[in-house]
Amino acid sequence: MVDGGRLWKRLSELAEIGKQEDGGVARLSFTKEERAAKDLVASYMQEAGLSVREDVAGNLFGRREGRDPNVPAVLIGSHVDSVLNGGDFDGPLGVLGGIEVLQTMNEEGVETERPVEVVAFTDEEGARFSLGMIGSRALTGTLSPEDLRHEDRDGVSIEQAMRDAGLDPGKIGDAVRSPDSLAAYLELHIEQGKVLEGENLPVGVVTGIAGPAWLRLSFTGEAGHAGTTPMGARRDALAAAAEVVGVVEEEASATGSTVGTVGQIEARPGGINIIPGGVELSLDLRDIDEAVRDGVEGRIRERAGEVCGRRGVALSFEELQRLPPAPCSEEIRASIAAACEKEGIKPHSLPSGAGHDGMHVAELCPMGMIFVRSKDGISHNPKEWSSREDCEAGCKILYLTVLDLAERA
Amino acid sequence: MVDGGRLWKRLSELAEIGKQEDGGVARLSFTKEERAAKDLVASYMQEAGLSVREDVAGNLFGRREGRDPNVPAVLIGSHVDSVLNGGDFDGPLGVLGGIEVLQTMNEEGVETERPVEVVAFTDEEGARFSLGMIGSRALTGTLSPEDLRHEDRDGVSIEQAMRDAGLDPGKIGDAVRSPDSLAAYLELHIEQGKVLEGENLPVGVVTGIAGPAWLRLSFTGEAGHAGTTPMGARRDALAAAAEVVGVVEEEASATGSTVGTVGQIEARPGGINIIPGGVELSLDLRDIDEAVRDGVEGRIRERAGEVCGRRGVALSFEELQRLPPAPCSEEIRASIAAACEKEGIKPHSLPSGAGHDGMHVAELCPMGMIFVRSKDGISHNPKEWSSREDCEAGCKILYLTVLDLAERA
Repeated sequence: MVDGGRLWKRLSELAEIGKQEDGGVARLSFTKEERAAKDLVASYMQEAGLSVREDVAGNLFGRREGRDPNVPAVLIGSHVDSVLNGGDFDGPLGVLGGIEVLQTMNEEGVETERPVEVVAFTDEEGARFSLGMIGSRALTGTLSPEDLRHEDRDGVSIEQAMRDAGLDPGKIGDAVRSPDSLAAYLELHIEQGKVLEGENLPVGVVTGIAGPAWLRLSFTGEAGHAGTTPMGARRDALAAAAEVVGVVEEEASATGSTVGTVGQIEARPGGINIIPGGVELSLDLRDIDEAVRDGVEGRIRERAGEVCGRRGVALSFEELQRLPPAPCSEEIRASIAAACEKEGIKPHSLPSGAGHDGMHVAELCPMGMIFVRSKDGISHNPKEWSSREDCEAGCKILYLTVLDLAERA
Repeated sequence: MVDGGRLWKRLSELAEIGKQEDGGVARLSFTKEERAAKDLVASYMQEAGLSVREDVAGNLFGRREGRDPNVPAVLIGSHVDSVLNGGDFDGPLGVLGGIEVLQTMNEEGVETERPVEVVAFTDEEGARFSLGMIGSRALTGTLSPEDLRHEDRDGVSIEQAMRDAGLDPGKIGDAVRSPDSLAAYLELHIEQGKVLEGENLPVGVVTGIAGPAWLRLSFTGEAGHAGTTPMGARRDALAAAAEVVGVVEEEASATGSTVGTVGQIEARPGGINIIPGGVELSLDLRDIDEAVRDGVEGRIRERAGEVCGRRGVALSFEELQRLPPAPCSEEIRASIAAACEKEGIKPHSLPSGAGHDGMHVAELCPMGMIFVRSKDGISHNPKEWSSREDCEAGCKILYLTVLDLAERA
């Protein structure tokens, strides 16, 4: 049941695409690196005997027919794009694990009632356009023309990047999947946290996905000469922004569950001897409990307003995305737990702090996730690591769960 | 005595070079904008009847002979480079005011004992290479080969930029002026602060120039996933850096005289959903009292070390430049004050918080500065403004002071 060596070899091969000098990977959406990764994945799908197609959003599918081609399919998969300096497992494990499951079924001559499809979604991470899960949004029809106008750092919009990659953004509606065509969505992914490591378990059963709120804060003070403007006469946008970074940390920490991150910051005009007149920073807030998350956001908005009011600095908030937490299907959780029992692994339930395409696919069909233990909980970092044994164990649980879900009429 | 209309017209013409959409100017060193500005200034020097030359550092000189061409000259001037989004007066006033003084002397047939030279120094601001006063450093022979390796944001060194501009960095020693060749250095400049405005005076007598210490702070924490790393398990380099920005503000403010500015900040890897693993920021500290400035720096280093130690973030300091404050010559101060009295202006003494080329030229000869009132104290900003009347008043004081200094044997 599943070939762990083949899965590991493919993970290593895929990790070479977009490899950085320090060992990290960078595969941003609609770049030649993401294209090369999808081409390699398509070749694996062909080796696995799947029928391969790519939709107008760039989502890559490999399909294995069931006994009845007309019943809703079980969809499994993940993504192959990465953050700017990411690791080898976040995304690829779910895509290559899914291919491994279907290739094994073909090799073993296993028949299922339902068709099973494996997907590599376009741009799950949002690292290029500050808008994640582009492919799965397209699948649900919720990717708006406004979404497509999000721009990268060079001012290139998603729309333009799609065109440059040979995709037609005007036909984005063609990527929509009918709920009738899907019975379940199941994703194998690394945990990216330390819970399973603490429990000494290779895999875990996900209860739900925390909802992210992404904001951009713009501070406008007044630029001035660093040598001649007394401290008391300044309207320093960076001093205000720095104080707000502290507020974010305080308010998120106070809840015990919300995480709050400022990952991007830019000060203008950016001269060593000029008081910053403008600052932009990003804010990423997440919690499995929407009310707690939104409470933190409210307090940050209030306190940041006070900070800026006191400093004579103007502040505006722009909402980049806001998603509610997504609970996993009870039925799929039970199926994963049963697979764990069968493999002699204690089924351990845990939430996902990270966002995943399943948040969107859940609008179409029941959704579930299997987590694989992450070393030191590190992710979005070149040091991201899951052992070959744990990856194989996760793939086995995926196999058993797919078998269960695809048998059901 | 001096043609205020001509001075104002030339200020307006020069301000068109490097003009930005929002009204600011950008003339970085060794760019085509700085070249165009120097070419225009050279044409004004020729109109003024001066003999024009440019040295190997790109410093542009216009000389008017005195009765005795062999006695040390009086040097007047300033610079024509600007910060990234600067104003129309910082630098150009001193260069064009100096040309106006010498053109007036020629038109009025005034003879002086000493030769008088007007100079437009190369890169006073340091906006491109984070190393200011390149031209005046070259004049004193203190511009080291190491200094020339400072790089701009695109990785271009000063050395390379000089070569690209047709200058030979290997001959930088040819720019050195002997102390025997200079009797005094005098600079007309906008105040860039609010003291003269508060005193309701058009001009002021500078007592000395505050010494800047420029540092780069590098924070190294650990990058990680913004959704899955609990607040308590983070080593967030930006959270640490933000706390240190607050320390800088606190410690500088506590002295009442030191100014401390963080003008540049960069977080890596810079993804919206990634905890920053690295941050670099610039620190500009200045005071007219070196001991007070260095005391602030010491407390910032100590407290920043505590902040980073508590957070598990590594911190290193790199010194970019460190200059002692430069007192102005008592004799030149007296000459400027006498000129003020003659013009019916109360001589008001004030320090310069901003650095100026005079800090370096003071190593060669006595140095003095005349300040012109700045509207709202704003500088290094498109809103930088001094009225036509105040510019003319400053130019008159410059004329009278030059006449006094150049007569003396």
